[in-house]
Amino acid sequence: MGGVKGNAVIGQSGGPTAVINRSFIGAILEARKHEEILDFYGARHGIQGMLNNEYVSLFEQPDFVLRQIAQTPAAALGSVRHKPTKEESKKIFDSFKKMNVRYFFYIGGNDSAETAYIINSFAADEGYDLRVVHIPKTIDNDLLVTDHCPGFGSAARFVASVFIGDNQDNRALKGVKINVVMGRNAGFLTAASLLAKQYPKDGPHLVYIPELPFDLDRFLEDVDRTYKEHGRALISVSEGINRQGIYNIKEGEKPEHVSTWLGSMVSLNLPEKYMPTGSKKTVEVDSHGNVSLSGSSMMGDILATIVKSSLEISRVRADTLGYPQRSFPLAISESDAAEAYQVGVDAVIAATRPTFDEGSIALRRIEDDGGYRIETFITPLQSVQRHTKSFPKEWITADGKIDERKFGEYLSPLVGELPMAGRFVRAIF
Amino acid sequence: MGGVKGNAVIGQSGGPTAVINRSFIGAILEARKHEEILDFYGARHGIQGMLNNEYVSLFEQPDFVLRQIAQTPAAALGSVRHKPTKEESKKIFDSFKKMNVRYFFYIGGNDSAETAYIINSFAADEGYDLRVVHIPKTIDNDLLVTDHCPGFGSAARFVASVFIGDNQDNRALKGVKINVVMGRNAGFLTAASLLAKQYPKDGPHLVYIPELPFDLDRFLEDVDRTYKEHGRALISVSEGINRQGIYNIKEGEKPEHVSTWLGSMVSLNLPEKYMPTGSKKTVEVDSHGNVSLSGSSMMGDILATIVKSSLEISRVRADTLGYPQRSFPLAISESDAAEAYQVGVDAVIAATRPTFDEGSIALRRIEDDGGYRIETFITPLQSVQRHTKSFPKEWITADGKIDERKFGEYLSPLVGELPMAGRFVRAIF
Repeated sequence: MGGVKGNAVIGQSGGPTAVINRSFIGAILEARKHEEILDFYGARHGIQGMLNNEYVSLFEQPDFVLRQIAQTPAAALGSVRHKPTKEESKKIFDSFKKMNVRYFFYIGGNDSAETAYIINSFAADEGYDLRVVHIPKTIDNDLLVTDHCPGFGSAARFVASVFIGDNQDNRALKGVKINVVMGRNAGFLTAASLLAKQYPKDGPHLVYIPELPFDLDRFLEDVDRTYKEHGRALISVSEGINRQGIYNIKEGEKPEHVSTWLGSMVSLNLPEKYMPTGSKKTVEVDSHGNVSLSGSSMMGDILATIVKSSLEISRVRADTLGYPQRSFPLAISESDAAEAYQVGVDAVIAATRPTFDEGSIALRRIEDDGGYRIETFITPLQSVQRHTKSFPKEWITADGKIDERKFGEYLSPLVGELPMAGRFVRAIF
Repeated sequence: MGGVKGNAVIGQSGGPTAVINRSFIGAILEARKHEEILDFYGARHGIQGMLNNEYVSLFEQPDFVLRQIAQTPAAALGSVRHKPTKEESKKIFDSFKKMNVRYFFYIGGNDSAETAYIINSFAADEGYDLRVVHIPKTIDNDLLVTDHCPGFGSAARFVASVFIGDNQDNRALKGVKINVVMGRNAGFLTAASLLAKQYPKDGPHLVYIPELPFDLDRFLEDVDRTYKEHGRALISVSEGINRQGIYNIKEGEKPEHVSTWLGSMVSLNLPEKYMPTGSKKTVEVDSHGNVSLSGSSMMGDILATIVKSSLEISRVRADTLGYPQRSFPLAISESDAAEAYQVGVDAVIAATRPTFDEGSIALRRIEDDGGYRIETFITPLQSVQRHTKSFPKEWITADGKIDERKFGEYLSPLVGELPMAGRFVRAIF
């Protein structure tokens, strides 16, 4: 009917999400309906499996198994962080030819789109009919073109829910609480904490995203002012905060991350026997022979210590929300789950169209009766690879804050209904 | 009918839980049915509100508000960490007399039971008819007498769910992952991570509870062995691990916490202007003038650094699960929620019986048809105050591991059904 007859390969790449397996399973269940897809192979750990010929036979799997996997967080095929070299990409393409692979689906972020693009270039050069589709996923929500990324809604639901609970906790035992949220270059997930604001004095009271420059003195002023006003402060900080602000960073420049800067002030004076030995230095050692701790995961603790020492506040705590943001199984957004499934299905539908060549599946909102509905479309691989999207400048107010109404309108349908905190009828505290 | 006519006071104390408000609201809704309870006052921030006469009038609150509050994590009245002195307790008792308080309910852990006991002693000495009931709550599950503590089941549900997701994540991107779990003196919550083991090779592969002595060299051997066997290691570590092990600590001795020991190896060389000034030293400064970071929250990072430097493993990560363990609104266990509500109701029922004096509500399993059912009973305040319960020695095997079957039988009904991870039919990796 549509595309050429042959086999299909699918892989998962990058940091997992809570719904990445929905896309994966959506593609398999749709592929079963297309007779031009003869067999379907799942590459173990993405390009690593493609390089080493490690595949799972997917059409063999019973439906009930696939449906169970769809509901399971993290990449069922295994994931990978490695970006292939040109040579490796060529090697993969050559093995695809040997395996009569005509359909290649790669689930991931912008790096995966680039990998897909490179492999597609080899096919184009040789006139080999390979249909390459990138299936988007990332909790960072930083892919270009698409309205939003599958995986983000569930991560945002987790983050917003953490802040709803933590806002109650912080009201019950007052103090300063700093929560560090994932998203090294984009502030979407950190900003999602704002959905926790259900009543006027709720936190997060302060939100710091990587797009805006972070200044420690200004941060301390903000915390001081907020604490004086509310008797407490709930703070949302992106792991990617940096001195310049991503908005001001030009192509080729690197952000000076606060985590790196603060991390450089910490040294860990390990006993001799736990120090790295000989050439096996997998951790950095400073000029004094001390081991450096990674700054990122301890940025929250260091910021808390600085708040404690600089301001007169005794109860200051920090949490780094960590991996549950991308893998927690009980905070999956319904719309996110459905859309993740849909992009998997639509990737196969697109690939089996007669004229299809390559592309990435993207989401677009349908503006009609005011309700939330999306549709998918195809965008060229080149339009999503390499670069990433920042938090839109239109959602930043003149005084450098996030416009909660505009961002909330965008975000709420992706996250779904959140638990509403109860409060006494007369404002008590 | 039952007790003497008068007013009632209720307060919440200690670290909040996800269901502590269920007990609070259960008590109010039950109290409305008892005409001997004339008015019901909620103390803001526990004994702090009782000392400063800061109360919320509870019978004024509409039902729908109360039911919404019941579903909200953390202490709606506000909580407190302060343990009152004898003088403060006397002051509270005197104000109770002035307010014609005849019923006193205190929701908290063993410290709250002690506070309740002391206030009750004043009443007993004077022959003043005051009915004092302690309502149990703690995510640590370390109260004596009771089978388990309201609040624990939901915290355990959160922890087990984190590990279910993280086990998938760790399979997808292999490495060593260390998760630090709350519970300074008791290992119940850390051990709850074991519920995440759904398939033979699942993590957590290693679990360290405060009851057993922690030895860093043995830990590294364990990690090395596990990593060699599985190509990965998911590790559950209590924040309270210590050198001796709580089982071996005698009355009056203090555990040497690993977090303190590791924390002492870290120094934070802050720029002058962020250092504590003059007498306002709210943070510790070591002999070199460096600021000390609190060890507890960074123990995971330091352990990860030691694993990285001592063993040849490049991908080592740590998360400290933090406050969501006690406040996350989307992982509430149904049985925990119901039981938390029940202990609130039963506290009021007990207090209004003709002959009642004082006590703490406790839970006991009804062994009948094999299904899980509980009933409440009263135990004297003295039986739950001061001391805490450790993880039962009967659930530790001869080789010093947790008996997963025995503990699982105890724990599963408290946590409820967990999301089941899907796997390919043939074991693939």
